[in-house]
Amino acid sequence: MASSMERHMNGLSPVAELRHPVKCPPRVVDSFVSNGHSEEVDSAESFIKQAMEIIMDEAVKKATDVHEKVCEWRSPEELKELLDLELRDGGESESEVLKRCRDAIRYSVKTGHPRFFNQLYAGMEPYSMVASFITEAIKTSLYTYEVAPVFTLMEDAVLRKMMELVGWEEGGEGIFNPGGSMSNMYAVNLARYRHCADIKEVGLYGAPRLVILTSQDCHYSISKSAALLGIGTKNVYVVPADKRGKMIPSALEEQIKLAKSEGAVPFMVNATAGTTVLGAFDPIQEIADICEKHDLWLHVDACWGGAALMSKKHRQLLKGIHRADSVAWNPHKMLMACLQCSAFLVRGKTNLLQRCHSARASYLFQQDKFYDVSYDTGDKSVQCSRKPDAFKLWLMWKALGTKELEWRVDRALTMARYLVQEMKKREGFRLLLEPEYANVCFWYIPPSLRKLPDGPELWKKLHAVAPVVKERMMKTGSMMIGYQTHGDKPNFFRMVVISPQVSREDLDFVLDEIHNLGKDL
Amino acid sequence: MASSMERHMNGLSPVAELRHPVKCPPRVVDSFVSNGHSEEVDSAESFIKQAMEIIMDEAVKKATDVHEKVCEWRSPEELKELLDLELRDGGESESEVLKRCRDAIRYSVKTGHPRFFNQLYAGMEPYSMVASFITEAIKTSLYTYEVAPVFTLMEDAVLRKMMELVGWEEGGEGIFNPGGSMSNMYAVNLARYRHCADIKEVGLYGAPRLVILTSQDCHYSISKSAALLGIGTKNVYVVPADKRGKMIPSALEEQIKLAKSEGAVPFMVNATAGTTVLGAFDPIQEIADICEKHDLWLHVDACWGGAALMSKKHRQLLKGIHRADSVAWNPHKMLMACLQCSAFLVRGKTNLLQRCHSARASYLFQQDKFYDVSYDTGDKSVQCSRKPDAFKLWLMWKALGTKELEWRVDRALTMARYLVQEMKKREGFRLLLEPEYANVCFWYIPPSLRKLPDGPELWKKLHAVAPVVKERMMKTGSMMIGYQTHGDKPNFFRMVVISPQVSREDLDFVLDEIHNLGKDL
Repeated sequence: MASSMERHMNGLSPVAELRHPVKCPPRVVDSFVSNGHSEEVDSAESFIKQAMEIIMDEAVKKATDVHEKVCEWRSPEELKELLDLELRDGGESESEVLKRCRDAIRYSVKTGHPRFFNQLYAGMEPYSMVASFITEAIKTSLYTYEVAPVFTLMEDAVLRKMMELVGWEEGGEGIFNPGGSMSNMYAVNLARYRHCADIKEVGLYGAPRLVILTSQDCHYSISKSAALLGIGTKNVYVVPADKRGKMIPSALEEQIKLAKSEGAVPFMVNATAGTTVLGAFDPIQEIADICEKHDLWLHVDACWGGAALMSKKHRQLLKGIHRADSVAWNPHKMLMACLQCSAFLVRGKTNLLQRCHSARASYLFQQDKFYDVSYDTGDKSVQCSRKPDAFKLWLMWKALGTKELEWRVDRALTMARYLVQEMKKREGFRLLLEPEYANVCFWYIPPSLRKLPDGPELWKKLHAVAPVVKERMMKTGSMMIGYQTHGDKPNFFRMVVISPQVSREDLDFVLDEIHNLGKDL
Repeated sequence: MASSMERHMNGLSPVAELRHPVKCPPRVVDSFVSNGHSEEVDSAESFIKQAMEIIMDEAVKKATDVHEKVCEWRSPEELKELLDLELRDGGESESEVLKRCRDAIRYSVKTGHPRFFNQLYAGMEPYSMVASFITEAIKTSLYTYEVAPVFTLMEDAVLRKMMELVGWEEGGEGIFNPGGSMSNMYAVNLARYRHCADIKEVGLYGAPRLVILTSQDCHYSISKSAALLGIGTKNVYVVPADKRGKMIPSALEEQIKLAKSEGAVPFMVNATAGTTVLGAFDPIQEIADICEKHDLWLHVDACWGGAALMSKKHRQLLKGIHRADSVAWNPHKMLMACLQCSAFLVRGKTNLLQRCHSARASYLFQQDKFYDVSYDTGDKSVQCSRKPDAFKLWLMWKALGTKELEWRVDRALTMARYLVQEMKKREGFRLLLEPEYANVCFWYIPPSLRKLPDGPELWKKLHAVAPVVKERMMKTGSMMIGYQTHGDKPNFFRMVVISPQVSREDLDFVLDEIHNLGKDL
């Protein structure tokens, strides 16, 4: 076989090569390459079509079929062998590459499967999935209107609608980010900027010690943001939560006073609407009162709980959110938009995002363009290229309408109630607490431990149960549920039902299966 | 028509609804929802298949067809009308949603088109595109091995290969990020952590004034990172570059001395391998010598220039990169991986990423798992959910092999040489400088200005030419090329040829078309 270089120089196009998109040798004239277009795209088309069929069969149909496994567990060592990870000098044939696609799907966890409950996202959402295929195919990056006209406007439309649901009468601005952690980071940076805009230029060196307040049950991204932004994790003052996981307002007030008495300067409170583990909602109204009194930025991390804003029945969980200065909300969680779809919203039309983050790059944000450059959103971001994630939500919303999204939320919370009722009927299941949202946290107590009295011995033994049950469910591939500790609580499971593709029978199965997997422990 | 609620309660499944995935009403028993699985996925399948056909026809074939327009320009006001952006209570029919998909593609810029030269990415890459479809379809987030077994291992394999090309004999670690700006931000944070690990906990309050050094031609993300991390944009000391855009090592040394003489503490130098506008490579060897002497972290921003590491012919542009402490490299640029595909690499096996960023969330990073938890990568990141972008590169690399990727780079630089030669042959084209990489920066001088001597009058008039030519090319939709100022230089075009789907004829067309669009100015 001719070497790649020879082929490129002699300009021949062997048929085998033609079937291999992009690999087909360019024709060379005067030592310059001048291949045309048609054959590459034709051969690419055949490859892409076959791959799309595989995606449809394996990643859509089979991956959501309740009769199939959620995952086909392999240890890292086994999987390395199976995948043949090494990257070599030579390429592979089309059929080999298609096999790679099949294998990647086969050994991946099926997060769209009706028995996947391991994370705060789940299910297959066809509209949002198609939207993400489109954005991948046309490879758009959001920074200027000229390169991303459609998605710039769609992002704006979706953000407005979300802000309407938050209830900001004065309007606001926003941006989609690669994940809720980034949104929370934006909140810390904006709060700091409003507190003292000079820090952008001069840094924190002359500044007093700045303090963020958040509950003990908040997401770990608050702490990560404090580390990254030079504030320091020790300057995140942790406010105790009550037994249900809600921040205690009087304790917040005490922590603010403590910080001030130390000469530190509190500048921001993070309230969580839907904590990661317990699904608790901090009392936003009381927290907003305290923030007003002390002139603190109020950020609401509603990444998980924001979905309740869609529901007339459940939106009272976030009562007072209209008083927040900023909100993080991930439609890729309960609303089922494809990963990632994370919005960060800021109250008021003060152009704070741009002022805080702008760097005015001359090669992108020319001021002598022929259109209104206020449509260029790139300087609002800490990123340069940024994905048009808003389209995933926009298309889904168009297809389903607000009412079906509302139903999706109501149904998820109904399913949590069902799960709670079923657990109460069964021996061996014990709730951590009555859920107020979709998170159902519980222990499975095997028969051998049911006679033990509450106390250190029971807790210690119980702590070892969830990891073993988890290992067994992974290895049988029947379902996936997360477990964790929380405070002094031993390992317990957290179940969240998000997808409307999950039936009541699936939940019955889950409870039966946990018992089957753990009854001998 | 029955309301959504009624339908949900009476459990009927009208045929029209069945064709509408996910909207199909769940069956309700005992006031609990218990719908099955099959019909939703069946109807979703029909929608997804139709959408896939549209994607193939419009976003793949038509979007890369040289006879079609690169963009169909509409002003924001016109486009708002055309797209009907409003999100309503009710949903839309399948055919309406498919029309939405067609419109989104139609009015988007075709970045895969052979005449799209507006950014540092371009072209249609079928393997990487298919890889991104797969990751979207199976909705994987990378933080734990249990949820992302395949992509965790693939990321590791790709990172190792990239580090091998960088030349780190001692090995290293890395992570894929949503964009090069994020990678550069990681570099600043790691450099600071190595300088003083306590800052993670206590913040910058007790710290001396920390200074980053970088050239005047570096990417704006360095300045954005300094602002975000509490270091301050003023503490980014700008090192002059020579006429070719390369950092002047003696000037670097002077700036380090200046900072020290002010009592500040330099901790990091950012060298750029392939600057955004001119495509210049800072002299890494000399800069590394200076960093060693002063014990400074050396980061190489090779987001754009990293691709040259694939080429035996051109890798000398990055000579000395093996001495860097960290490297940012975006395979979504010249290597054509789908957006986004951005790697951040760190020299040495010191687990610095994890130490610097960890927050040890109990709900993800349990230590009592049944597998080796060193495969859980999530605590290396500032994100929580993170996309498996490495797969886009892995699959493409498997399909093409290192040699074809090398050819892709060599061809891009050959095309730049061709463009330069052609410009020299033509009246009215003037190069800013002889390119050393793929960036060809040039002025188009309309006939009316060709007689003017070099001087303020010419520069002023020339400054107005590129924006008008750009407006006209956008409105005809014939091609897209970026323009910008640089230092005291008036507006000029920057051309970069990335895609092997671009022919020599396309470049001839570009030069002819610029003349046609601008000859009357």
